[in-house]
Amino acid sequence: MNKLLIVGTVAFDAIETPFGKTDKILGGAATYIGISASFFNVKSAIVSVVGDDFPQEYLDLLTDRNIDISGIEVVKGGKTFFWSGLYHNDLNSRDTLVTELNVLADFQPKVPQDYKNAEIVMLGNLHPLVQSSVLDQMETKPKLVVLDTMNFWMDCALPELLAIIKRVDVITINDEEARQLSGEYSLVKAAAKIHEMGPKYVVIKKGEHGALLFHGEEIFFAPALPLEEVFDPTGAGDTFAGGFSGFITQSENVSFDNMKNAIIHGSNLASFSVEKFGTERMLDLDKKEVVSRLKQFKSLTQFEIEL
Amino acid sequence: MNKLLIVGTVAFDAIETPFGKTDKILGGAATYIGISASFFNVKSAIVSVVGDDFPQEYLDLLTDRNIDISGIEVVKGGKTFFWSGLYHNDLNSRDTLVTELNVLADFQPKVPQDYKNAEIVMLGNLHPLVQSSVLDQMETKPKLVVLDTMNFWMDCALPELLAIIKRVDVITINDEEARQLSGEYSLVKAAAKIHEMGPKYVVIKKGEHGALLFHGEEIFFAPALPLEEVFDPTGAGDTFAGGFSGFITQSENVSFDNMKNAIIHGSNLASFSVEKFGTERMLDLDKKEVVSRLKQFKSLTQFEIEL
Repeated sequence: MNKLLIVGTVAFDAIETPFGKTDKILGGAATYIGISASFFNVKSAIVSVVGDDFPQEYLDLLTDRNIDISGIEVVKGGKTFFWSGLYHNDLNSRDTLVTELNVLADFQPKVPQDYKNAEIVMLGNLHPLVQSSVLDQMETKPKLVVLDTMNFWMDCALPELLAIIKRVDVITINDEEARQLSGEYSLVKAAAKIHEMGPKYVVIKKGEHGALLFHGEEIFFAPALPLEEVFDPTGAGDTFAGGFSGFITQSENVSFDNMKNAIIHGSNLASFSVEKFGTERMLDLDKKEVVSRLKQFKSLTQFEIEL
Repeated sequence: MNKLLIVGTVAFDAIETPFGKTDKILGGAATYIGISASFFNVKSAIVSVVGDDFPQEYLDLLTDRNIDISGIEVVKGGKTFFWSGLYHNDLNSRDTLVTELNVLADFQPKVPQDYKNAEIVMLGNLHPLVQSSVLDQMETKPKLVVLDTMNFWMDCALPELLAIIKRVDVITINDEEARQLSGEYSLVKAAAKIHEMGPKYVVIKKGEHGALLFHGEEIFFAPALPLEEVFDPTGAGDTFAGGFSGFITQSENVSFDNMKNAIIHGSNLASFSVEKFGTERMLDLDKKEVVSRLKQFKSLTQFEIEL
């Protein structure tokens, strides 16, 4: 079984949407990535940090899904990273209400020895120096390194971000971030500029409008599944990244054609994630439902024009 | 050869985009629909009205493409409908600067005798009473009636609009109009409500984000082709409608599966239309380019997940 190394936050989230609000619940990029990747036949480990206020029950939930948590440092007397956000009525925009870095402020990631030869590395959204440190610790060159990031690091750590972008094979960012990073409005032009920064593959996430995969002149597009109701978009991008990297790890095939499939798997899993608050829907999801919705993706996009 | 009857405006447009501006040029919904449908093997006719200020050269341009213009009334001493618009920087929104109805104000459409048994009727954007009048003149029931409309008629002629919506098989509108018409934000819910108003098929156009086709529980999605630059979106929706109805007319197959192909043909042709001002790109487009871009649509969306 191939190994997937995941780095990212494991955190508390408090979310408010037009449909309701939550107390502090399980969140964090690595949490969503790990749970999503666990739908594939892979060995995975999370590198992260929490405080000793983090419930054992949440850690158990990860180990129950065969995620190796030996790389999650528990800081004694420390407080876990906390994010709180309020979504607007259209759910396409949100305000961050609270960001408490807490133990994340001094985080020094430590990759478990057993994962220093992981085939695939998924660098979830975190400070670019933490992402770099994880790559530095690898003892064999991974088959594929995937990076997720956000506009926050473009604003306040751009040189460090550009340095890690140079080292990865795939970058996943949203449309506004792609525009900010490249200075180009057209996503085709933005992707071309980001290619020049290093990544051979550029994935631009457009939320409810789907995702684009660019590889040189080649483009693939996966729609988001049209849903009756999007309940909570939190973690959708991370769930997408987890499905993408999980499927690539399982198949051990980093061709462009297989990445198309990975994009579909990522979009498919993300379509469940937004149906309930936080990780709730992903935790009660079974593989039958996953396959059934993959069929919907096929009928949503496949057509028969003969050329 | 099957017959396609088109009703809609034939007009002057003056367009300003971030890339430049035009004088009064050839425009109008029926113009774009007719030119787009002329890429298929069909007999087509336009029902419309112009003033005698309308250049013969523009009319010749339509007859050169084998479009029957005997249903385009030329009003002596009348002035042709004129629209002028200014697109904002992102090209996703625009301000209407001028709307001069002119000869359109008293337009009484007359369907040419030879088209009263047309297989397919494409009701382009116009007053709903004009659209109804065209349907009333049909002597045999068309295989498919397609309606395009816009928010303007929802604001100022809603009962008449609802009456014609009840009589059509397919409605094509954009996402904001679907929300306005249905009172639902979710496009899935909006489509369900619009189904109840009459049309068995609901096409929701999302501009650069593609188009959705709803038929009961079934959904198909066609992306817009990612372009380096969108130069002028004017007429893209009409070009889409022309490609859709033109292909359906040619194939004479009104199944859901064939409508998927029609949506792709419509999206394909619309992707050319936006590359230059007005009808310019469509008029210098050849069939080889059309086929070549259809291949791009295939590689953009088709994947190989086995289920």
